[in-house]
Amino acid sequence: MTRPPAPGGPGETVGTLGEFALIDRVVARAGVARATEVGPGDDAAVVRTPDGRVVATTDVLVEGRHFRRDWSSGTDVGHKAAAANLADVAAMGAVPTALLVGLACPADTPTAWLEEVADGLAAEAGPLGAAVVGGDTVAAAPDSRAVVLSVTALGDLGGRAPVLRSGARPGDVLALAGRLGWSGCGLAVLRRGFSSPLAAVRAHRRPEPPYAAGPAAADAGATAMCDVSDGLLADAGHLAEASGVVVEVDRAALAAATLDPPGPLQQVGAALGVDPLAWVLTGGEDHALLATFPPDATLPPGWTVVGGVSAAGDDGPGVRVDGRPAADVAQALGAGGTGHVHFG
Amino acid sequence: MTRPPAPGGPGETVGTLGEFALIDRVVARAGVARATEVGPGDDAAVVRTPDGRVVATTDVLVEGRHFRRDWSSGTDVGHKAAAANLADVAAMGAVPTALLVGLACPADTPTAWLEEVADGLAAEAGPLGAAVVGGDTVAAAPDSRAVVLSVTALGDLGGRAPVLRSGARPGDVLALAGRLGWSGCGLAVLRRGFSSPLAAVRAHRRPEPPYAAGPAAADAGATAMCDVSDGLLADAGHLAEASGVVVEVDRAALAAATLDPPGPLQQVGAALGVDPLAWVLTGGEDHALLATFPPDATLPPGWTVVGGVSAAGDDGPGVRVDGRPAADVAQALGAGGTGHVHFG
Repeated sequence: MTRPPAPGGPGETVGTLGEFALIDRVVARAGVARATEVGPGDDAAVVRTPDGRVVATTDVLVEGRHFRRDWSSGTDVGHKAAAANLADVAAMGAVPTALLVGLACPADTPTAWLEEVADGLAAEAGPLGAAVVGGDTVAAAPDSRAVVLSVTALGDLGGRAPVLRSGARPGDVLALAGRLGWSGCGLAVLRRGFSSPLAAVRAHRRPEPPYAAGPAAADAGATAMCDVSDGLLADAGHLAEASGVVVEVDRAALAAATLDPPGPLQQVGAALGVDPLAWVLTGGEDHALLATFPPDATLPPGWTVVGGVSAAGDDGPGVRVDGRPAADVAQALGAGGTGHVHFG
Repeated sequence: MTRPPAPGGPGETVGTLGEFALIDRVVARAGVARATEVGPGDDAAVVRTPDGRVVATTDVLVEGRHFRRDWSSGTDVGHKAAAANLADVAAMGAVPTALLVGLACPADTPTAWLEEVADGLAAEAGPLGAAVVGGDTVAAAPDSRAVVLSVTALGDLGGRAPVLRSGARPGDVLALAGRLGWSGCGLAVLRRGFSSPLAAVRAHRRPEPPYAAGPAAADAGATAMCDVSDGLLADAGHLAEASGVVVEVDRAALAAATLDPPGPLQQVGAALGVDPLAWVLTGGEDHALLATFPPDATLPPGWTVVGGVSAAGDDGPGVRVDGRPAADVAQALGAGGTGHVHFG
């Protein structure tokens, strides 16, 4: 006769603990959000929205696509899943208030691993005043051993107008907040079986989006903003398309903003024969913020000018680096494309 | 050389169309919610919350667990995923405003199927004034052929206090709105390879939650409320635990409310040798609403008294049917337990 492992013991899994006990366990680690009126455990959560509007965004992370359990701890995965969503909230000019988590996992997933995920979600959201307020846990598909994590983040605009991708105008300056290329560099390291330099690997496991720079940019009059999740050239392209403009990246200014002082990108680039600027231009998942400002705006702390905006010509909207089309620049750098592509 | 299928052609898949084009396609079918200020296509959506609070809930549907593509069309799956979430919003006493959809699917998933899902989501949410305002589409795990659909619903309380599971008091009446047992009956039919009676099969494919009954119950002074997604006995158990009371189900009143006039449950029950009350008591996914009201409350249209609430004795909180413990009743009816259990 097989006996179930003791609660909390090393052999405990989602299947032996049960869905509802698991939810209780995760809830105990969720923290409390300032804006929470009704937290986990009821049919739905109730979150205060003092602005009278709520910002909402969803990102899905799939094991084997967005993370690997041998490369990232559960805590890392929680941090990363929260960061991907919280950065989207910041990119609207809002402050995060709450997370909801949908989780599909095999029944033999260790509960300790899922508790780590809950810890990571709470640790990433907590300093911003947000917490996990609800969610759903179900069994993975019968054919799959993979964890699928779908996180929804809510946020409050605090009276600010949302900063869309579509507001960039010719003559605006292009500015960047946060790191670029670090996650891509860390991924390149892990793919080759290495685990150092740790700073790069850590950046892949736990991105560090510049959350406060989002609302600050909105307050400073940013005309357009997005987070860089697919790569700078790709996301600048989305902004250019939405605004009907050409986004002009100044290569020297971008390099100065992202590669000075020299760090892990140069170190790994030299070892692997990769121009670090390839990671800066096309690496995804750092969740930097990219914004355009009127030419006379005073940029808030953390923001650096890396280019400008010009009118779309006969070629239509797009991205140029020192006047050259983004795709040509990416190709010359040996990057496979202008950014991360799903279903590639 | 293989050529990609023509856009919109019969061989078109998620992989040949690409993520961003797919999102455009889905967005075009999303409908427009009354409360939408910024819809799909930016970093996040912005939804108006006139109440100053937002109700939020997430449910995950996994192919092979919650639906099968040979039993349900994409449109059915969209309806079902939306209904599961929209019913949770109603169960708080709120009116739905928006949906966000996280989707993981194999690259060779036909886009036509996903467009059906989008149609189903929009068709279920639209009549309530809600629509899909955002989402994320990613590749399924490398080991999986299954679609995973995570839906988040938002709602507005319109000045009502949220009706929690924890407010039931001894002396309250227990009331039900909506159908029970139909989805479980339909599932039993499908499992045996049949596709009729159609009314039961249809109920499994597309539940019909009594959305308006939720806010109406809140207005009528409901003390506690939940939606019945795991089965009546199971969900009544959650309400009893949260309120610290005993929920007393009156078997005759419940049968009158759910099995009269006779319909597909009796028809299928007779054919399969199953007491239809087993489906009523333990079948999940109909998303009926269960609520408690003060004894002097006037029940709104659509609500029927099916029992009452008594104080918890030495045995603690729980559910009784005609005075007998729920587990005994379920066992006597031949049901495997008091409700649907994940990871069972």
